[in-house]
Amino acid sequence: MRTVDFYFDYSSTNSYFAAFMLPQICARHGARVRWLPLHLAALFRGTGFDVMAMTPHKARYLWRDHARYAEFTGLPFRKPSRFPIKTALALRATLAIPRLFEPGARLNDDSLARCEEEIGRFAQALFRAYWERDEDIARPETIARVAREEGFDGKRLAELADSAAAREALASVTQVAIERGVFGAPTFFVGYEMFWGKDRLDFVERLLKAR
Amino acid sequence: MRTVDFYFDYSSTNSYFAAFMLPQICARHGARVRWLPLHLAALFRGTGFDVMAMTPHKARYLWRDHARYAEFTGLPFRKPSRFPIKTALALRATLAIPRLFEPGARLNDDSLARCEEEIGRFAQALFRAYWERDEDIARPETIARVAREEGFDGKRLAELADSAAAREALASVTQVAIERGVFGAPTFFVGYEMFWGKDRLDFVERLLKAR
Repeated sequence: MRTVDFYFDYSSTNSYFAAFMLPQICARHGARVRWLPLHLAALFRGTGFDVMAMTPHKARYLWRDHARYAEFTGLPFRKPSRFPIKTALALRATLAIPRLFEPGARLNDDSLARCEEEIGRFAQALFRAYWERDEDIARPETIARVAREEGFDGKRLAELADSAAAREALASVTQVAIERGVFGAPTFFVGYEMFWGKDRLDFVERLLKAR
Repeated sequence: MRTVDFYFDYSSTNSYFAAFMLPQICARHGARVRWLPLHLAALFRGTGFDVMAMTPHKARYLWRDHARYAEFTGLPFRKPSRFPIKTALALRATLAIPRLFEPGARLNDDSLARCEEEIGRFAQALFRAYWERDEDIARPETIARVAREEGFDGKRLAELADSAAAREALASVTQVAIERGVFGAPTFFVGYEMFWGKDRLDFVERLLKAR
């Protein structure tokens, strides 16, 4: 089955929109989303990029742009009161989702597909908590509750998210992203082709259609 | 007749694509393009923004993105050997186009429409010279020749472009753009709604369709 690699961070408004637009596109073309939580703050630290450095005119426009995408997609987007927000724990929790089930079991294609679906469901729930209900997803209690509401073992997930293994996993996903040329989020890969930004999802869809 | 204000600079790759995409959109919805040459270097100087400051990953990606738009639009885009390029003279020549005909005549709706068409034709010719044929549009000789090839008085236009009046006109258009909230190019206005980037032309089109 074809996959689209989806690098995202919960701190990225454009990742929020992509987290709901991409699965619809993939469903239309028989492709699967591979959810890849990316530590954007670490990536930006490495490149010296300051995401908050912009003119007041541009900052104001970007929120207007988000409101337009909300109208276009029908998503109940709301500007959060905490912005930017620390997302490392939420990202690590996302990477730890597969460890909640089938411990030690050998992964086959079916269980991989199920893993991706579970990660996606949890990621969408966290995106909604922050970008629709203004919840503080930097707090372990919030993460555990969101997980519980989605039917996961929230307490266990919060523990796993705080482990050395989860820290290594997030650093590793971020490092691989950098090596693949990622410089921001959301970023999508269809094969070797990289696309940056929710406004390139039409190109992602055309490529899926053509293949 | 409805108009879309189009702020552009010849130094902007995305303005090149928009200069050919926007007129098609306007033609589909009975709207007129108002061509507004913007001195991007002056605008960026004012905001302290450095357009060339980016990571090598991002710079490489952006050229790939341009190549994709070239394929999508069918435009024979070619990365120019001189980049960035000084565009003040070309922008001033564009603003001087109306002064080539009907001197002193009172402008009515028909002559305004004709002015916009002539400016658009000249602007597209300059965009093609730089972004398709790698010509040095910083040189007055190039600007005069491109004008001549489009049927204008190239020698007279080069003189007008060098006048104090043309300098004032460009500074004034740029200043008004800044006051309207413009922070980059291409920027489009449909009424009071501002859109930044060729990748928002779908939003421009939806708004024209809805009104």
